[in-house]
Amino acid sequence: MDTEFFSLAAGVGTKSSNGEWLEVFYPAPFFQPDAWLVDALASVTGYQGGNQVIELDSTTCHALEEVFLQHNLLDHTLVLGALEASQNPRVLTFLATDAAPASTPEAYLKLHLISHRFVKPRSINLDGVFSLLPNVAWTCRGAIDPAELPHRQLAARSRGEVLRVYSIDRFPPMVNYVVPSGVRIADAARVRLGAYLGEGTTVMPAGFVNFDAGAEGPCMIEGRISSGVFVGAGSDLGGGCSTMGTLSGGGTARVSVGKNCLIGANAGVGIALGDRCTLEAGLYVTAGTKVSLLDDSGRVVDTVKASSLSGRSDLVFRRHSVTGAVECLPNRSSIALNESLHNN
Amino acid sequence: MDTEFFSLAAGVGTKSSNGEWLEVFYPAPFFQPDAWLVDALASVTGYQGGNQVIELDSTTCHALEEVFLQHNLLDHTLVLGALEASQNPRVLTFLATDAAPASTPEAYLKLHLISHRFVKPRSINLDGVFSLLPNVAWTCRGAIDPAELPHRQLAARSRGEVLRVYSIDRFPPMVNYVVPSGVRIADAARVRLGAYLGEGTTVMPAGFVNFDAGAEGPCMIEGRISSGVFVGAGSDLGGGCSTMGTLSGGGTARVSVGKNCLIGANAGVGIALGDRCTLEAGLYVTAGTKVSLLDDSGRVVDTVKASSLSGRSDLVFRRHSVTGAVECLPNRSSIALNESLHNN
Amino acid sequence: MDTEFFSLAAGVGTKSSNGEWLEVFYPAPFFQPDAWLVDALASVTGYQGGNQVIELDSTTCHALEEVFLQHNLLDHTLVLGALEASQNPRVLTFLATDAAPASTPEAYLKLHLISHRFVKPRSINLDGVFSLLPNVAWTCRGAIDPAELPHRQLAARSRGEVLRVYSIDRFPPMVNYVVPSGVRIADAARVRLGAYLGEGTTVMPAGFVNFDAGAEGPCMIEGRISSGVFVGAGSDLGGGCSTMGTLSGGGTARVSVGKNCLIGANAGVGIALGDRCTLEAGLYVTAGTKVSLLDDSGRVVDTVKASSLSGRSDLVFRRHSVTGAVECLPNRSSIALNESLHNN
Repeated sequence: MDTEFFSLAAGVGTKSSNGEWLEVFYPAPFFQPDAWLVDALASVTGYQGGNQVIELDSTTCHALEEVFLQHNLLDHTLVLGALEASQNPRVLTFLATDAAPASTPEAYLKLHLISHRFVKPRSINLDGVFSLLPNVAWTCRGAIDPAELPHRQLAARSRGEVLRVYSIDRFPPMVNYVVPSGVRIADAARVRLGAYLGEGTTVMPAGFVNFDAGAEGPCMIEGRISSGVFVGAGSDLGGGCSTMGTLSGGGTARVSVGKNCLIGANAGVGIALGDRCTLEAGLYVTAGTKVSLLDDSGRVVDTVKASSLSGRSDLVFRRHSVTGAVECLPNRSSIALNESLHNN
Repeated sequence: MDTEFFSLAAGVGTKSSNGEWLEVFYPAPFFQPDAWLVDALASVTGYQGGNQVIELDSTTCHALEEVFLQHNLLDHTLVLGALEASQNPRVLTFLATDAAPASTPEAYLKLHLISHRFVKPRSINLDGVFSLLPNVAWTCRGAIDPAELPHRQLAARSRGEVLRVYSIDRFPPMVNYVVPSGVRIADAARVRLGAYLGEGTTVMPAGFVNFDAGAEGPCMIEGRISSGVFVGAGSDLGGGCSTMGTLSGGGTARVSVGKNCLIGANAGVGIALGDRCTLEAGLYVTAGTKVSLLDDSGRVVDTVKASSLSGRSDLVFRRHSVTGAVECLPNRSSIALNESLHNN
Repeated sequence: MDTEFFSLAAGVGTKSSNGEWLEVFYPAPFFQPDAWLVDALASVTGYQGGNQVIELDSTTCHALEEVFLQHNLLDHTLVLGALEASQNPRVLTFLATDAAPASTPEAYLKLHLISHRFVKPRSINLDGVFSLLPNVAWTCRGAIDPAELPHRQLAARSRGEVLRVYSIDRFPPMVNYVVPSGVRIADAARVRLGAYLGEGTTVMPAGFVNFDAGAEGPCMIEGRISSGVFVGAGSDLGGGCSTMGTLSGGGTARVSVGKNCLIGANAGVGIALGDRCTLEAGLYVTAGTKVSLLDDSGRVVDTVKASSLSGRSDLVFRRHSVTGAVECLPNRSSIALNESLHNN
């Protein structure tokens, strides 16, 4: 094979009673696997190339287990052993290329790749992922087709039990699939599979991280990271703050947050912030906000749309508490800090 | 019977160890059932009229099952079969009229009626419902009287288990009782039983829908819908936005949101919005907010209290980012859209 | 013993597979126990003084049970009976003094003391508590070392189950450890162990109460109480409102909220509020906010930093909706109310 193989992974999942995929769990996906491994797994499963989902029986799981054992890939040997024992549907998903996902198992694998930190948000092709993820009731008995819930709840009640439903959503909580190292997540419901949480990231109960979005880490996330938004290293999102998404009316401008930024509690941002920017608590800056630019002595030198400041570093945004004007001034403390860092 | 019968339903519930109702689940309530059905069920249970909760034994459940089977009501036949098998207390609740609920089972039935979309919020009599709903610990072992928790937790721990408590509240999560079609709910804890979610409604993790409140659908709800507030079709509530409730200090004015409105993230509204209104992200408009009215050319033509704009359509509310004034101007894009719709 | 003994408690907990403490549950801790009780328990366990965690076997649990039974302490007799039966590690933790906690079991006991309302937030020594609380995966199978999650999830999946992870955090939800009387908590994930919720406190889904923080009660908490912040009796925190913490960039000023205050929805406070203060919905007042002081007739008499108003009572904070200025005026209704209360 001339170009790099994109990804492959063995998984186990759940289907509805009419045979449709509800979800797939990939315990240990490969990103850019070596060609010899692809070939070895292809020889067991009959894979012929392209992006393909191959369902596995226990015998094939065992044969794959042997391949991994021969090559001393012990974690994957364990995975295939567990899959061999499972009564649930099992797959080996081959993604030769980063083409748009074409099935539920492919979509799930791509979300796993982000949460496993193999790739950053907005760097892989997720076109159409939404429609490939069925709406699922995530319950104490696993993934259930919402149409089957009334029957299942009734059966549980007749046994004196309650079928607890945690969410009804296309996306499951990330932590039931991937738990990256060095993170804290105060409420599992607030981080979807497909979120990227770098080492040292904490997501507090008022935080939220959508799929194909995330934080480089270390970061303190007490606000909401919309789909498509990435937060740089060392940045803090204050309690309840908002980053405007491109999915829901945020327009075409891409919102992002650079390194070492501080977005205050209940604030919001609808532009791209550079590094070392600060937004005052409670202030919402959208692309169309008219901002009074101040010089070092505090004089207004210009009034511009916030969108024109997109991507600039070392800015402080605040609303003057006497005049009510939204102002932007140089972040002196961060500039000083930055200069001293560069001098060392 | 001269007037329409209001509702009836068979249910199964939980009582505390001192015999008080904690909760009742009605798998398939009837709204405005036919008189012959009321008569048939009355003849089995001895119901004499009025609003009455009749506790059922397994024999009576079986007899009711036969009634439903005879009339080819198969879903209800299944329900009564499940109730017959249950060891939990079972009821047949007759509500001849929409009088104020008089017991816990009656209160639960009324909340079910809203969540099953038989009735809209604020359209049925819920007087006193709060005091009829006992405070319950909702746990992995079902509904428990909070006074019994220490004993139950200790017993679980001695077995090496943890009794997980999900909430301690008068209201359970809706989704353990009713899951309406075509909805997504990212976190079950954010939608109480008694919420109304129309087809096509999504409630995100920062959203919340109280009882006797809801969204007509399709709607994207990332903010909080207070008790008594109803959101019209096609409207979006941005992340963390607030609708002022009448329960908690919002005064007597009734807050509502019309059709095709957009409330920005972290914004808030304390008046009734008509159709096609937009509130800028981060702006809180209360009844007392003084609003500068702008004409089409952007001139201030008047300054009024926001309460005087209650119910008006095609308005945009924003805070001028240079002067700090809260302004209201015609929503040109929505008016244009509306005119073109009416021309077709 | 000359000075008062601080606390002691029997507990049962969980260790990781490498023998490190993950968590300890103390069903019924003693605060300032009588000297005779300390002596009686010391004689059974060999306790010699100081702050010490003694691990218990079932025989010792039984002997302690006898001590409690002899002194007619029936609740504690039941606790020790349950501990005797448990296969989990058990401890008797003696804290002779309120020194900084020195181990995970000591840290957990101190958090229990706050949630059991023995002590108020900020009144006991929690120095270093953060590093003594290991990061734990809180799951449907109890506390698990995050490093062991992949193996455990794989094992669950091979059995056709899902290991549900509720949070990954140093702090567990309070309600799995302590459920104080007279509270409602709409979402268990929003109140950490170590929170103080006084009688009559309700925490709604948008609320949050961190450790070493809380509300005196009765209080309606729909906003976030940061670590170190205490809210006085009769105060309401509106939906999504923020109290600035001292842990995360809030500076050195101590934020607090007095009695009978009202913080509006999506508002925020970065100073100490006295009693009967009101913050308008959507307004964030930080220590550095310049505030125009109004007299009774509405004239601006001064402009001061909000920090200079720290601790003052009977104030209303609002942003003038025409001029955009943050204003502070006397809270006439609360002053009138207060005067009439004092006259009675």
